[in-house]
Amino acid sequence: MSNHDSVRPVEWSDDTLWLLDQRLLPAEEKRLAVRDVAAAADAIRSMVVRGAPAIGIAAAYGVALAVRELHARAGAGWRDALDAPLAALTEARPTAVNLSWAVARMRRRLLASDVAQPFAVALEEARRIHAEDVRDNRRMGTLGASLLTGTDSVLTHCNAGSLATGGYGTALGVVRACAEAGRLLNVYADETRPWLQGARLTAWELQRDGIPVTLICDAAAASLMQRRRIQAVLVGADRIARNGDVANKIGTYGLAIAARHHRVPFIVVAPTSTIDPAVACGADIPLEERPLDELVALAGHDLAPAGTAAWNPVFDVTPAALVSALVTERGVCRAPDRAGVDALLGRDVAAVT
Amino acid sequence: MSNHDSVRPVEWSDDTLWLLDQRLLPAEEKRLAVRDVAAAADAIRSMVVRGAPAIGIAAAYGVALAVRELHARAGAGWRDALDAPLAALTEARPTAVNLSWAVARMRRRLLASDVAQPFAVALEEARRIHAEDVRDNRRMGTLGASLLTGTDSVLTHCNAGSLATGGYGTALGVVRACAEAGRLLNVYADETRPWLQGARLTAWELQRDGIPVTLICDAAAASLMQRRRIQAVLVGADRIARNGDVANKIGTYGLAIAARHHRVPFIVVAPTSTIDPAVACGADIPLEERPLDELVALAGHDLAPAGTAAWNPVFDVTPAALVSALVTERGVCRAPDRAGVDALLGRDVAAVT
Repeated sequence: MSNHDSVRPVEWSDDTLWLLDQRLLPAEEKRLAVRDVAAAADAIRSMVVRGAPAIGIAAAYGVALAVRELHARAGAGWRDALDAPLAALTEARPTAVNLSWAVARMRRRLLASDVAQPFAVALEEARRIHAEDVRDNRRMGTLGASLLTGTDSVLTHCNAGSLATGGYGTALGVVRACAEAGRLLNVYADETRPWLQGARLTAWELQRDGIPVTLICDAAAASLMQRRRIQAVLVGADRIARNGDVANKIGTYGLAIAARHHRVPFIVVAPTSTIDPAVACGADIPLEERPLDELVALAGHDLAPAGTAAWNPVFDVTPAALVSALVTERGVCRAPDRAGVDALLGRDVAAVT
Repeated sequence: MSNHDSVRPVEWSDDTLWLLDQRLLPAEEKRLAVRDVAAAADAIRSMVVRGAPAIGIAAAYGVALAVRELHARAGAGWRDALDAPLAALTEARPTAVNLSWAVARMRRRLLASDVAQPFAVALEEARRIHAEDVRDNRRMGTLGASLLTGTDSVLTHCNAGSLATGGYGTALGVVRACAEAGRLLNVYADETRPWLQGARLTAWELQRDGIPVTLICDAAAASLMQRRRIQAVLVGADRIARNGDVANKIGTYGLAIAARHHRVPFIVVAPTSTIDPAVACGADIPLEERPLDELVALAGHDLAPAGTAAWNPVFDVTPAALVSALVTERGVCRAPDRAGVDALLGRDVAAVT
């Protein structure tokens, strides 16, 4: 890891999955020990771990934990009982497709051939998914950095950094790649209500890695563009439809509209595991709504009067037409559309870079 | 007051100015006694009272308090000492022009002729400003309601309600006028970070007045429009330039861009006292930036890591070109521009309605 890459939210050691508890940051830096698949599903559901790629990696290790339990209990019969815990993992959160992608990949690996030591095989595959994610983030960082010539300040939303991935980050991976090349960008971070991923997580990991970060409230983003303080918007994604529509943290869509209004490039950085080939367009992506208390209370303090109704969708869909470029580990797709996304999925890198 | 109009943030009784302390809402409903002009300026500065028209009214009573003090101390010499306390009032906050408008009007009244009982004259003028504001809000409510045929849900930002005015409200005055006409609109309220005027104040006053309100985080507004859940955006204003550019709570500009993108009418409701004839365009409006702690901490709880840099502009400027209609007590100006605003200022109501 370089100076600018010190944070890892998911680790495996001592036969245990360790998750940096992102509910407690920045006040407390504490790793939660996860020793069975039910605890892994709970950790994903309750946002101990969040961020589409990190959720996928945690779920992969969760499958390994499931296999360990099943093999200990049922011996050679472990295969027959695999579906229930894997379904529970997959259903822990609805929007990020990396979750079902990782679980499906683990399942394929486990059921593909005659696996005698299923836990060892599962752990090896989970570690491979984890390592590939970090490698892919570095690749996206380099590709994304090449789009930012002449850029000194960027805006980001939510946390698409080390904490959202196996490490290094997607959107913030681009920022890290710039830093490694000797170019420190100024990062404006939306605080990202209601869960405050920007204030709590992005500010924390960028500070820790020596990258300048300035917090703004979400509603100040358009004004920031009007005042020409940024030259690009960089975000991650939770699920990308076949036509290039992007589901991401609530507020991403408004940023994309404002960026288009100001002719500021709006760049989505996400691994191809975030593309869902089964979903034709954004309207078909399930968008999670979370409990109202995330919005009406904070740290035990009531923000709104008792009984206030609220609407708390935590993702929105940005139409592909508002996306300037989609940066993946397989290449950059400018002005993504069905053909561009298909080219990425076909690994036809020449056609998309 | 009707069923839908029960809230008054500024009152004069027992020789005292009483301000509903908006820093404490909704947890605590407490009126602060203001007995001298220094306390009035402090209350405006510290946002005990906020909202452009309410600030103007509080300042008018503040001038009365100044005159009472000066007359008691200096007798007939009260006039000579008037400028310093009036300047202190005017400088308490920079963006809302209603503040300097009200102080200037009070000064003109006091210095116009041979005033023997200056406190009585000042108090009478402050009460007139207060009563005119409520009357004008009712007029704007009726005018604005006429623009909302076929509308069942609106989005508002910050608090442009009773709490921001002498009573009844500007943007929320339109909602109240609809309610009085038997048409209860659903109001979506942006929570309005960082000070949470939407969550704390708009939700509180609409709940109290029996008007349905649903809280959203600021970043969900564009998604609300995309899903066609609202048919209009209604906001107030802190200062309007001669060309129709509108300074209002941070986030207003982003809403206006999103509204235009979705072809949703974006309606500004403000009395003509909010128009600053001395300011040609929005770029010349002073935009207040407030302390970072409003953004990085809440109720003693740190939201971001210690030492996080932040940018906390509390107003932005929406260009006139994004405003569908400006509703004032003198009439409605559609697609406001210099000529339209001048027509309003000239009281040439026929030309603008």
